[in-house]
Amino acid sequence: MLNKTELAARGFSRRSFGRIATVVTAGTTLPFFNEFSLAQQAAPRGSRGAMPTDAVRISSNENPLGPCQDALDAIYKVAKYGGRYSPFGEQQQFIKAVADTDDLKPDYIAAYAGSSDPLHRAVCAFTSPTKSLVMSDPGYEAGGRTAEFIGAKVHRIPLRKDFSHDVEAMVKADPNAGIIYICNPNNPSGSMTSMKDIEWVVANKPKGSILLLDEAYIHFAQDETGAPLVKADKDVIILRTFSKAYGMAGIRAGTALGRPDLLEKLRPYGSGMLPITGLVAATASLRNKTLIAERRKINKDIRENVFEFLDSKKFSYVPSVSNKFMLEVGRPGMDVVNALAKEKVYIGRVWKIWPTKVRVTIGTQEEMDKFKAALVKVMA
Amino acid sequence: MLNKTELAARGFSRRSFGRIATVVTAGTTLPFFNEFSLAQQAAPRGSRGAMPTDAVRISSNENPLGPCQDALDAIYKVAKYGGRYSPFGEQQQFIKAVADTDDLKPDYIAAYAGSSDPLHRAVCAFTSPTKSLVMSDPGYEAGGRTAEFIGAKVHRIPLRKDFSHDVEAMVKADPNAGIIYICNPNNPSGSMTSMKDIEWVVANKPKGSILLLDEAYIHFAQDETGAPLVKADKDVIILRTFSKAYGMAGIRAGTALGRPDLLEKLRPYGSGMLPITGLVAATASLRNKTLIAERRKINKDIRENVFEFLDSKKFSYVPSVSNKFMLEVGRPGMDVVNALAKEKVYIGRVWKIWPTKVRVTIGTQEEMDKFKAALVKVMA
Repeated sequence: MLNKTELAARGFSRRSFGRIATVVTAGTTLPFFNEFSLAQQAAPRGSRGAMPTDAVRISSNENPLGPCQDALDAIYKVAKYGGRYSPFGEQQQFIKAVADTDDLKPDYIAAYAGSSDPLHRAVCAFTSPTKSLVMSDPGYEAGGRTAEFIGAKVHRIPLRKDFSHDVEAMVKADPNAGIIYICNPNNPSGSMTSMKDIEWVVANKPKGSILLLDEAYIHFAQDETGAPLVKADKDVIILRTFSKAYGMAGIRAGTALGRPDLLEKLRPYGSGMLPITGLVAATASLRNKTLIAERRKINKDIRENVFEFLDSKKFSYVPSVSNKFMLEVGRPGMDVVNALAKEKVYIGRVWKIWPTKVRVTIGTQEEMDKFKAALVKVMA
Repeated sequence: MLNKTELAARGFSRRSFGRIATVVTAGTTLPFFNEFSLAQQAAPRGSRGAMPTDAVRISSNENPLGPCQDALDAIYKVAKYGGRYSPFGEQQQFIKAVADTDDLKPDYIAAYAGSSDPLHRAVCAFTSPTKSLVMSDPGYEAGGRTAEFIGAKVHRIPLRKDFSHDVEAMVKADPNAGIIYICNPNNPSGSMTSMKDIEWVVANKPKGSILLLDEAYIHFAQDETGAPLVKADKDVIILRTFSKAYGMAGIRAGTALGRPDLLEKLRPYGSGMLPITGLVAATASLRNKTLIAERRKINKDIRENVFEFLDSKKFSYVPSVSNKFMLEVGRPGMDVVNALAKEKVYIGRVWKIWPTKVRVTIGTQEEMDKFKAALVKVMA
């Protein structure tokens, strides 16, 4: 076995090593959930991984615009050097670009191949059978599923009437909470929780817990983020992904932002090399200072067009500032999901707390026009 | 918690779920070793991640040729669709290309972002404090390090005088072995173990153990692989990577080949989405039916040129059929590693059992000419 110095050199404490023996007897670790796998699980039978080529895919909160031209150019430029694990220090350059963007020191940033990996790790590191996860209902399921799988309690707290997180109820839910999880804007509702509320959580959350602030969709909504809380050394880990506004779900890049001691707790949960294609594309995207404003406007314009249509047809929906929204269908949601799939329009899933609402991702204008036509047909 | 049906739907048995609770109390999992991280750990001080741009990088068994043109074209073509997690079923297409290449059914193939991940998983799944790992000495360290970390015994069996694996000694080493690990051709020695010996291991290995056959470098050596053993449903898992002959270390793709019930044991050890860039590049590389022969010849020609030089200068070395070889330097190996680094030639590391040998990767002819000049200077 490794001695103390060797362990320390690899970033492991003696204590964590002392507990490792139990891992091996477990003989398994955790399942992995992300937006794609959750969408696939909930997809109508026959459509899992086998949508027709002319399908309207508005099920996984993907961005049909894909990577920006700068990101593509960066991929084209680096790919031929891909014989090297790290031809030009791509990971360090990515970290530096994030540091510049979010005004954080480099050691407050950890790179991952998306945000699902660090979400999964954070739940492993900060919840347990005696430390619960507190999240919203409806909320993004991945963290809650992982927590339940490892035997941690999950407290699902309904959103307020204005669809923001009920931060008072969340903070009061369990004095032994390990994580208060806030996805902002929320998935699936697309609704915001104010920075004031988030700061209130940080000031009032149970001792020993962290705020896990999932900003996967923040770029669609606003420039203000939780990064200053990280800079101020609060007990906060922020998750970011390049899969959404940056259009890189298939390219893979993401980050966790947090105090170095918090990020260190995520580190041991396995990992491999990151693809340099994802790293350079993410770096180039961050350096494009107009990209997010442009994409935010495109998304907003199409979303507002859809909402105008829904208003005109007297549909009700949850107001959203994100790339998806919850549509009220007045019947079991999955009936509408399945009926739309027959029209080759694949929308998202249903949350138990809102059984007659379905999640719809904002696609291109053309895709949303097809969605509108199919919806009218199906609901007639 | 999940019920039995839900668990089964996610591929988990009740038994593995019953044991999962211990994972959470462990509070950590495993460190991750691969060729790059091992090379970085062993690198001379000051050169870790910060080699000069004109450095000769022959330390990590990388392929300076990078991805082939077909692979690059595939990356260029798919990247713009990277807003989707899986725009055209890239993973299924990759699995099909592997199935065609190795004459295996698709469910005998699991895709990973390289071969280090499934190596790591296999050690977690098949070794334990009561099930050891048997490997060669010298051998590729990653599996042994993981095994030791989780408290499994590691039996390191010296290579035979002809530098092949001593399969009789390996099979006899421990009746409770969980894994017999053979890297073929071996890393670091670049030497082959015959298919006859490998078949003998399969026929004679301890009950309940598997042969973990690491074919990361097989493409440099020969067309014959262990795939027929997998096809014949033997207790064999083969690891393959696109990081070596295919030149995709920074692009990321790899596989584990094995009976579905063996691959299933690797599956639960966490994972995320694979980059579609890696998947399409690997698929295109497999479909290029002349690539491996071409690259094998390039590697062989440069290797033989280096060996001729070493012969002429009376250096001794371990004969190799791979993209690296062990050079005898007649003094502590790290002294030569450090001296060469001062000449901006970064070679590989030293194995304890061979303290006066250093590993050298075969780079381009130009790189090897610089290596030769620096070696003469340093050894003078």
